[in-house]
Amino acid sequence: MVDTDEAYVLRPVGRVVSPLTDAASAPRQGDEGAPAAWLVFDRSVERALGDLSVGAELLVLTWLDRARRDVLAVHPRGDESRPETGVFSTRSPHRPNPIGLHRVRVLAVDGLRVQVADLEALDGTPVLDVKPVLGAVDER
Amino acid sequence: MVDTDEAYVLRPVGRVVSPLTDAASAPRQGDEGAPAAWLVFDRSVERALGDLSVGAELLVLTWLDRARRDVLAVHPRGDESRPETGVFSTRSPHRPNPIGLHRVRVLAVDGLRVQVADLEALDGTPVLDVKPVLGAVDER
Repeated sequence: MVDTDEAYVLRPVGRVVSPLTDAASAPRQGDEGAPAAWLVFDRSVERALGDLSVGAELLVLTWLDRARRDVLAVHPRGDESRPETGVFSTRSPHRPNPIGLHRVRVLAVDGLRVQVADLEALDGTPVLDVKPVLGAVDER
Repeated sequence: MVDTDEAYVLRPVGRVVSPLTDAASAPRQGDEGAPAAWLVFDRSVERALGDLSVGAELLVLTWLDRARRDVLAVHPRGDESRPETGVFSTRSPHRPNPIGLHRVRVLAVDGLRVQVADLEALDGTPVLDVKPVLGAVDER
């Protein structure tokens, strides 16, 4: 059985600084016209980001702090002509654990600040984690 | 400034049931020989998973409950001949917010149980979220 009484605590490691402030006008995915943005990290994780370099392809995990956690089905892309679909089959921000997943490319690194292309997350969104995009098996 | 006093609470939506029980012998990534495994979901998210179907390519997010959160740099793949690298440039499970990201394919759906190929997560690992792999922009 699944023990859902358990809980895990996330602490943000940084924050998104972006010209995007309004969910209604933001692109739905990073490759749909999202602007450049900065990831501003906390000093406590300085060593974790020390090897990020310009050109790196990254996956940024965020906490979608404006999402609803009680929504289990949505019309994909807010299009009511499409049938309601369980959120695990959609990229809706609304989901039980609203973790955002964003593929970006590093444009600049300036100490605790990393500029990235193609990030659709809103200004102020907490950053949880950063991972490299995996290359071919023999290059890992 | 980053406010790291904030915290967000994750609640697992399911659990991995897998023959993999030992981190030392498990593959490091799903495409490095991981076995099939089951995702067993909680009844509370039944509607969220209701549209998963055989053949779907998914990203499964897990809580890496055996990882260390205070490790900020590692030798990639545990290979001490490689220089210590900040964890945001590696796929090490050890990181401040140890969220696992796994690309899998659905083999079977049986009510609240979903069988997937290529999952390197250990038996008992909590499942946090499931997302579809994004296709081309015009197919979203």
